[in-house]
Amino acid sequence: MTGDILTLNAGSSSVKVAVFHPDCRDGTARMTAKIAGIGRAPVFSAHDRAGQTLASGQLEKLAPSSSHEDVMALLLEWLEGQLDGQTLSVVGHRVVHGGTRFSQPIRITEAILQDLNALAPLAPLHQPHNLAAIRAVAKWRPELTQIACFDTGFHRTQDRMATLFALPRALSEEGIIRYGFHGLSYDYIASVLPDQIGTAADGRVIVAHLGNGASMCAMQNRKSVATSMGFTALDGLMMGRRCGALDPGVVLYLLQSKGMEPAEIEALLYKQSGLLGVSGISNNMKVLEDSDAPGAHEAIDLYTYRAASTLAGLVPALGGLETIVFTAGIGENSARVRRAICDRLQWLGVELDSRANDANAIKISSAASAVDVLVLPTNEEAVIAAACRTLMDPSNA
Amino acid sequence: MTGDILTLNAGSSSVKVAVFHPDCRDGTARMTAKIAGIGRAPVFSAHDRAGQTLASGQLEKLAPSSSHEDVMALLLEWLEGQLDGQTLSVVGHRVVHGGTRFSQPIRITEAILQDLNALAPLAPLHQPHNLAAIRAVAKWRPELTQIACFDTGFHRTQDRMATLFALPRALSEEGIIRYGFHGLSYDYIASVLPDQIGTAADGRVIVAHLGNGASMCAMQNRKSVATSMGFTALDGLMMGRRCGALDPGVVLYLLQSKGMEPAEIEALLYKQSGLLGVSGISNNMKVLEDSDAPGAHEAIDLYTYRAASTLAGLVPALGGLETIVFTAGIGENSARVRRAICDRLQWLGVELDSRANDANAIKISSAASAVDVLVLPTNEEAVIAAACRTLMDPSNA
Repeated sequence: MTGDILTLNAGSSSVKVAVFHPDCRDGTARMTAKIAGIGRAPVFSAHDRAGQTLASGQLEKLAPSSSHEDVMALLLEWLEGQLDGQTLSVVGHRVVHGGTRFSQPIRITEAILQDLNALAPLAPLHQPHNLAAIRAVAKWRPELTQIACFDTGFHRTQDRMATLFALPRALSEEGIIRYGFHGLSYDYIASVLPDQIGTAADGRVIVAHLGNGASMCAMQNRKSVATSMGFTALDGLMMGRRCGALDPGVVLYLLQSKGMEPAEIEALLYKQSGLLGVSGISNNMKVLEDSDAPGAHEAIDLYTYRAASTLAGLVPALGGLETIVFTAGIGENSARVRRAICDRLQWLGVELDSRANDANAIKISSAASAVDVLVLPTNEEAVIAAACRTLMDPSNA
Repeated sequence: MTGDILTLNAGSSSVKVAVFHPDCRDGTARMTAKIAGIGRAPVFSAHDRAGQTLASGQLEKLAPSSSHEDVMALLLEWLEGQLDGQTLSVVGHRVVHGGTRFSQPIRITEAILQDLNALAPLAPLHQPHNLAAIRAVAKWRPELTQIACFDTGFHRTQDRMATLFALPRALSEEGIIRYGFHGLSYDYIASVLPDQIGTAADGRVIVAHLGNGASMCAMQNRKSVATSMGFTALDGLMMGRRCGALDPGVVLYLLQSKGMEPAEIEALLYKQSGLLGVSGISNNMKVLEDSDAPGAHEAIDLYTYRAASTLAGLVPALGGLETIVFTAGIGENSARVRRAICDRLQWLGVELDSRANDANAIKISSAASAVDVLVLPTNEEAVIAAACRTLMDPSNA
């Protein structure tokens, strides 16, 4: 493979890309770029390998009504102008849902695209955007190989008990099971954990991916044993705007007694709940941490109360716990959230080193702690780039 | 108070009653009776204080279409014929939902009955039957005092964090919170626990009420700190026919992608799921334990896998754990279920005494166990009778 690798993470209102040299294996991108605010006021930003800004500002060319097709045309044109004559050879996509069939990264064909489209109802707010970006690249650069990497894939090693709901067998058999998400993030953490803790990386580990979306994964031998997200990206931890675990009877009540429409309930649970709904202020943890409003305090308290409970609930699947890893935006940056979660886990032998925690150090547990607690930055793009390298390698053909 | 106390637990297909002497405080009923199979083939059974059968058999008088009114007329007539000239003075009802307003037992008035009726959408499969029985008694025996005891009441001591969903504040404020149920059972266990373990009863205890419905309650100082059931009786543990905790996205999927009606989904989650749905065989744990079918094994495995996870998830609310109590039908009688749950909790220091567990002994943990594990029969009727005594006592007026 001679051309560069482009990784692409397309959401409802943003597209994030990174360009990797085909031989660079340290997980560092040549360049990253992002278009945010799609559908409202699109903003473009791009950075080089050293984090220096290459471009930033409003995108007047993009109308508020612009589609992923418009966005991708603009992005590809700009990126290729930056590559100093180097070409792209492959595009690796983060695709949220691979169902039961797709656990490993795969070259995208028209048939596979149709299979992935059939999974859209399982991730209605994510999958359609992932697939729209694939179609846009296929339209503008049909010569490029495209590869899908699945957020569900990492969890397919789980025991059946971890994946079943207590629903009639016929529903489980048709695919209403607990898939789990954030697999690219967990895969990355699993890949770098031995560098930090050696063979203990193969022990009993819980990774807390606390970003806009949030979930936890219990790992043993660096494979997923159980996770907090279920069939959709709505279950488990409280998130920025999503409710996390919720009595299914509440959904029935909203339908039957409050007369809400399914689409209204979907918007309520995916977009108006979580930190935003409980605080009444913001979905942004940093904003809440800086606020004196009681609602902000309560939202953070509930977030950490539930996170500690969810973490504890994963321990039986491992039969004990030696290591906790915090990652993603909140996990990497909020000492207060990590502190509040760990304080509720003292009975597990968890003890933080306050100074290390406040400094967002890699190891934040004290020497006396029975459980090692780490903070590691995640890098989903590096996992996608590595998958592209592997699939493009002729020796793997 | 000179007349006897009648306790009444009216469900959709059964009515259970017990008669207590007004001065008898040991929790033993003079007599118990039950009509099961209401709406299908009604069967009556009654037992005296010693457990000897007083009557049993088909009830030809009751048509399959008979209402709670018909059932109560028959029951009251039969009971009064058994009382040797003694009269009834008060009827204490198990009422599943007291909302945020009713935490303590209360004398029922027409106004209160209307308030309780307004809570029916929060427990659609239970509350209407509880209230129908109250109305039937009021019709046939208007002179009797009636008292409501609430299954939600015991949990009203919980910290706000234990009661909130991560939903918008306006919904929490209108009462969409985690109420918890099985409060009469937990109240009973809390009342007898000091007889078994002395002051340790005020320590950190988790009670597992595993019956047809099932939930767990984390207690400290014998007060509820957190519980696994939420807004409705659907959340938390897997049950006989109920699904327990379920990704709310599954409900949206059943609505939006499978085109199911809300009432169909309600029936699916309340009546076709749990042990019945997963096994495809039965909602009865005993039947599943006696079966060699893979579905039966899988249902028991999932039941215990989830129970261990739920129990562990309650520990952070207590900050540790000293005692586990198993109660209700499955909790009191299934050594296999207790064994499977406790085996998944060895990392907590839980160690069973196999012989004691197999014998359904009161204390089933080994001498070396870091956590005491008990099996205690529950007695919700005794709690209702005690509440009737208290409310009828003129010195409390």
